[in-house]
Amino acid sequence: MISCHSVVNLPEARKVAIFGGTHGNEMSGVTLVNLWINNGAEVQRSGLTVKPYITNPRAVEKCTRYVDTDLNRAFTTDNLSLPRIEDLPYEVRRAQEINETFGPKGSSNAYDQSIAPASCSVLLNEHPLLHYSTSRSVGKHPIGVEVGPQPQGVLRSDIFEAMRAVVNHGLDFIELFNGGMEFEPCTVDVYRVSGNMDYPRDKKGNITAMIHPNLQDSDWVPLNPGDPVFQTFDGRTINYEGESTVYPTFINEAAYYEKQQAFVITRKETLKANGIRASNI
Amino acid sequence: MISCHSVVNLPEARKVAIFGGTHGNEMSGVTLVNLWINNGAEVQRSGLTVKPYITNPRAVEKCTRYVDTDLNRAFTTDNLSLPRIEDLPYEVRRAQEINETFGPKGSSNAYDQSIAPASCSVLLNEHPLLHYSTSRSVGKHPIGVEVGPQPQGVLRSDIFEAMRAVVNHGLDFIELFNGGMEFEPCTVDVYRVSGNMDYPRDKKGNITAMIHPNLQDSDWVPLNPGDPVFQTFDGRTINYEGESTVYPTFINEAAYYEKQQAFVITRKETLKANGIRASNI
Repeated sequence: MISCHSVVNLPEARKVAIFGGTHGNEMSGVTLVNLWINNGAEVQRSGLTVKPYITNPRAVEKCTRYVDTDLNRAFTTDNLSLPRIEDLPYEVRRAQEINETFGPKGSSNAYDQSIAPASCSVLLNEHPLLHYSTSRSVGKHPIGVEVGPQPQGVLRSDIFEAMRAVVNHGLDFIELFNGGMEFEPCTVDVYRVSGNMDYPRDKKGNITAMIHPNLQDSDWVPLNPGDPVFQTFDGRTINYEGESTVYPTFINEAAYYEKQQAFVITRKETLKANGIRASNI
Repeated sequence: MISCHSVVNLPEARKVAIFGGTHGNEMSGVTLVNLWINNGAEVQRSGLTVKPYITNPRAVEKCTRYVDTDLNRAFTTDNLSLPRIEDLPYEVRRAQEINETFGPKGSSNAYDQSIAPASCSVLLNEHPLLHYSTSRSVGKHPIGVEVGPQPQGVLRSDIFEAMRAVVNHGLDFIELFNGGMEFEPCTVDVYRVSGNMDYPRDKKGNITAMIHPNLQDSDWVPLNPGDPVFQTFDGRTINYEGESTVYPTFINEAAYYEKQQAFVITRKETLKANGIRASNI
C-alpha cells in the first residue's frame, strides 16, 4: 500500500492531442479546436507537441451530433479491427483513422489528451455495465472535458471561455510536471457513475413525463430519497425512490433521449491521490 | 378615424387549428400537440372546433428542424401553386397539403390559429423586407407562440407549461368572445421588427465572435448605443453602434446561424386596440 505522503515517479508527457467536434453540434469544442488549428500559439507549451484536431469533420459541417453512428461510442475493439471497406459507417472508418494517428488504443505511444471546467466536477466512468468507447479512449491518459449543459448548435461565450480555461490549465500542468515540479499528495472529490435513469414511458416508448422543475438545471446538486424527479403531463410528481443521496448529472440533455437516459446517477467519493513528479528529473 | 372608445363588431371564430412540430426539434409544441391529439378534452371549448395538428411529422420523427427545407418559410404563393410532383422537397409538398386542409391562405374559410407565453411580448413582423412564409400564414387570424429560447431537442417543463397556459388562454378568449363578452379598448406594447444582426465573420464566412455575455439570455432587454453585443475570440468587445435604444430577441438561437442572424432587432411601440365584440350578439 502506498502511504499518503508518497511521491510517485511517472514518465514525462510529450504529445498532447486536443480533440474537438466529436459531436458536430457541440460548438465550444468545435470552435476552440478550429481556432487553435488556425493559430496554435495559445496552446503551445515548452517541450510539448500539441495537436488540436477535429475528430468528426462531416458532423461538424452538418452541425449534427453524428452522421451514421455516435463517434463517441465507436472506438470498440471490434470496430477498430474491422477490415477497411467502403461501406462501413462513416464514424467507424473515422475511428479507425483516429486510432492509427493518435493511438493505437492501449499503446504506450498514444497521445495524452486534454479536453476538462475551471472548477470542475470529476466524473468517474468505471461502472462495470457502462462501456463507453469514446474518441478520447485512443489516448494514453484520456481526459474528457464536458462543459454544459449547452444547447446543441449554439456557441455560448460562458461555456466557450470555461472550456478554454480548463484546456489551458491542463497544458500548464503538463508543462510544469515535465519541468520537474513536484505535485503534493491530495484528496479529490469524485462522482462515480452508478447507473442512469430513463424518462417514464408508455407502452409505445413515448415519454409520459418531463424532468421536474426542481431537478432541471441542478446537475451535481444532491438528490435525496423522496425528492421530485419527474412531472407527468397530467401534473403528477414522481419522486426519487432510491435509498440514499445521489448526485445527478447530464440532466435532460437533447442527445440522450435516444439513449433512454433522463439523467446519470452518480455517488460522491473522496479519493486520495499520490504526489507525483517526472521520473527523469 | 375610429375613436379610442369605439367597439368594433367582428364575426365569431368557430374553427381553431393548433399547429405543433413545424420544427421537429422544438419539443414543447410537438409534445403538447401530440398530447392533445390523444386526448383533446383540455383544448375543447363550447361552440368551437379545435384541431391540434403536427405540421412536419417527418422532422418530428427525426427530431430535426426540417427534412429538406424550412417548413416555416415554405408557404409562399409560388410554392403553394406548384404542380404536385413526386420530387418536390418534402416540406413544400407538406405546405400544399396543409394549405388545402386549413386554408386556403387568405380565404375566409381558413382556420384561426392559436399557438403564444403567459405574460408575453408581442412581436410585430410587418417589416417590408421580411417575408416570412410560415405555416400559420394559412390561417385567417394566425398567432405564433414562441416560448424560449429552448434548446433544440429538449423538453423543459417550464417552457412546456408556459406554452400550454398561453394556448389555453387563447382558447378561453375565443370562447368568451363568441359567447358575447365585450372586450374594452386598451393599449398594447409591441415590439416591431426593424432588422436583424449577423455575427461578425471572416472572408470565408466563419464567425469570428460570439454573443457578448451581457447580451446572452437578455431577450427583450433594452440595448443602448455603446452597449456590448459581441466578444471576439481574441477577447475584444464589439459594441452596438445603432443610434437609439432597441430590444433584441431571438438572441443566439441554434436555428439561425444558417440564416446569418445573431439576433433580431425590434423597436418598442404602443398600439391602441379597439374594443371588440362578436357581431351576431
